[in-house]
Amino acid sequence: MKLRYHTYDLQLQHTFTIARESSDVSTVVFVELEHDGITGYGEAAPSERYGETPDTVIDFLKKVEIEKIDDPFLIERNAGYLESLSSKDYSARTAIDIALHDWVGKALGIPLYKMWGLSPDDTPKTTFTIGIDTPEKIKEKVREAEQYPLLKIKLGGENDEEILDAVRSVTDKVLRVDANEGWTIREIALEKIVWLQRNEVEFVEQPMPADMVLETAWLRERASIPVIADENVVTLYDVPRVRGAFDGINIKLMKCGGLNAALKMIYTAKSMKMSIMMGCMVESSVAISAAAQLSPLLDYADLDGNLLITNDPFEGVMVENGRLILSDKPGIGVTKKGGT
Amino acid sequence: MKLRYHTYDLQLQHTFTIARESSDVSTVVFVELEHDGITGYGEAAPSERYGETPDTVIDFLKKVEIEKIDDPFLIERNAGYLESLSSKDYSARTAIDIALHDWVGKALGIPLYKMWGLSPDDTPKTTFTIGIDTPEKIKEKVREAEQYPLLKIKLGGENDEEILDAVRSVTDKVLRVDANEGWTIREIALEKIVWLQRNEVEFVEQPMPADMVLETAWLRERASIPVIADENVVTLYDVPRVRGAFDGINIKLMKCGGLNAALKMIYTAKSMKMSIMMGCMVESSVAISAAAQLSPLLDYADLDGNLLITNDPFEGVMVENGRLILSDKPGIGVTKKGGT
Repeated sequence: MKLRYHTYDLQLQHTFTIARESSDVSTVVFVELEHDGITGYGEAAPSERYGETPDTVIDFLKKVEIEKIDDPFLIERNAGYLESLSSKDYSARTAIDIALHDWVGKALGIPLYKMWGLSPDDTPKTTFTIGIDTPEKIKEKVREAEQYPLLKIKLGGENDEEILDAVRSVTDKVLRVDANEGWTIREIALEKIVWLQRNEVEFVEQPMPADMVLETAWLRERASIPVIADENVVTLYDVPRVRGAFDGINIKLMKCGGLNAALKMIYTAKSMKMSIMMGCMVESSVAISAAAQLSPLLDYADLDGNLLITNDPFEGVMVENGRLILSDKPGIGVTKKGGT
Repeated sequence: MKLRYHTYDLQLQHTFTIARESSDVSTVVFVELEHDGITGYGEAAPSERYGETPDTVIDFLKKVEIEKIDDPFLIERNAGYLESLSSKDYSARTAIDIALHDWVGKALGIPLYKMWGLSPDDTPKTTFTIGIDTPEKIKEKVREAEQYPLLKIKLGGENDEEILDAVRSVTDKVLRVDANEGWTIREIALEKIVWLQRNEVEFVEQPMPADMVLETAWLRERASIPVIADENVVTLYDVPRVRGAFDGINIKLMKCGGLNAALKMIYTAKSMKMSIMMGCMVESSVAISAAAQLSPLLDYADLDGNLLITNDPFEGVMVENGRLILSDKPGIGVTKKGGT
């Protein structure tokens, strides 16, 4: 088994601003695992919100003794080994986990969705994200996003009203809102939600900071639209903890440690009749296509990271009229552009 | 796709008595699904506790329009179709689900444990069950069970003390106790548990009736050994419901509707840090081998249904020094005795 990795700067079409930060470039780490003539691809998109940077990802990958992962089929044991090196370093572990899954699918000659018993006919539509910006820029972005029927609007900053007004002035599409922990007073958060519903927003993601679960439970009791957990749900063990405070969860591969962990979170949320969403960071088609393999199990998809960039070195899952389209290629279903 | 089925009388080595019933013969329904030259095997072991008999299984199988299951790989959709016919009929749905999984594993040429990312080196030991009987008979059964290092003792009847004394008079093996809802007064149940611990019993399963969850939570708070849910956990949605009242859950394929449902229950219990056990009815090697494919994920296994019978038409998972031994045969890993 050979492990190779390198950093890569994803160029953003627009400067991307959310409640906490702003950027033009997003650096990811690509991973390749080669074994028995098959190469599995993986990707880490580290987030400072969870204590990761490209450097911490590389540091983690240097710690991996790849001979301890001698059989990619041993998904549970391999995930256990990676977790034994660090219980954090989520995106770094995810990069290897995706590559191992890609390898397994290729060895079996089937896409991962088939291994999980899913139908490619059951994929949902994905939202397309409109970052925080000036009203004029936002109107321009919404017009550019014409082909996407569902939009996700980033709020939680200083000028929420201005942003949503700008969006609604040019479209009557279904909107979903992500506040990224931006509202810190429960009464104000409730006013915001009443206002969101008046603007026909379908649901709101993470209205309050992750350490304000009780306040969020108070809010959810009074909210007339679903409240979805994002920063409050990192790993599997967080899912039962947010029961009662949220109506659903947003799973991200880069938070949870990999595809098998995400599958477990999906099943757990289903047992509690919570709605299930998958989201992403700014990512290439590697990580997005990996997540999309699970998408037939989702209620909501926000898998647009690869649609926001201009230099994706891979191609995989496609989007048609907003819907995720899975191919019958094996593993995560990606190929390198201009090659394999 | 062709669906064939027939009833079969499993002959018990000893008359089998638990708190609710007693029997010499246990009738199961074998299922075969043939498609593209591959045959998948399945089995229903109906339990009257859950409203099923061999007749209700046959009635259910007659209702199945097999052309609606044209692709065995669509595990989720196929399970959804079967559930749309009946939300009960657990073992009947399980029979088809096992056969579909067996078919998928055979089509891929791998055992199911490999498809689920598990290592055959991680299988646990199984208990061997000693049914309710006279002290003399019990001593005889315990001696016959010499090769099994873990014993499961059925209590919850009129003569608990007599039975456990008989067992302990001839062995100091690890014992696990199943009360099958037999204790109906919480204070008495607590006395029983104190007495079990004094007799070095590792845990107790379903001490009180399934409709006494609050009493069981009271009991568990005071119990010094783990309390495991059996009759209280039928399907996936029951797992979060018993949190707090039990330390773990006993999953049975014949209760939950199939292998994929069992996998979901295992992951859900893991998210709540509950311990995970799989149990069985009196079953042939078909259903036992199917459950054993999941056994690397278990804390406790009670998969001895095929060890209690004398006319098993199949062979599959083996037991060596009590440990479940999975082969590398594809699917559920069974062959018909004297053939395939």
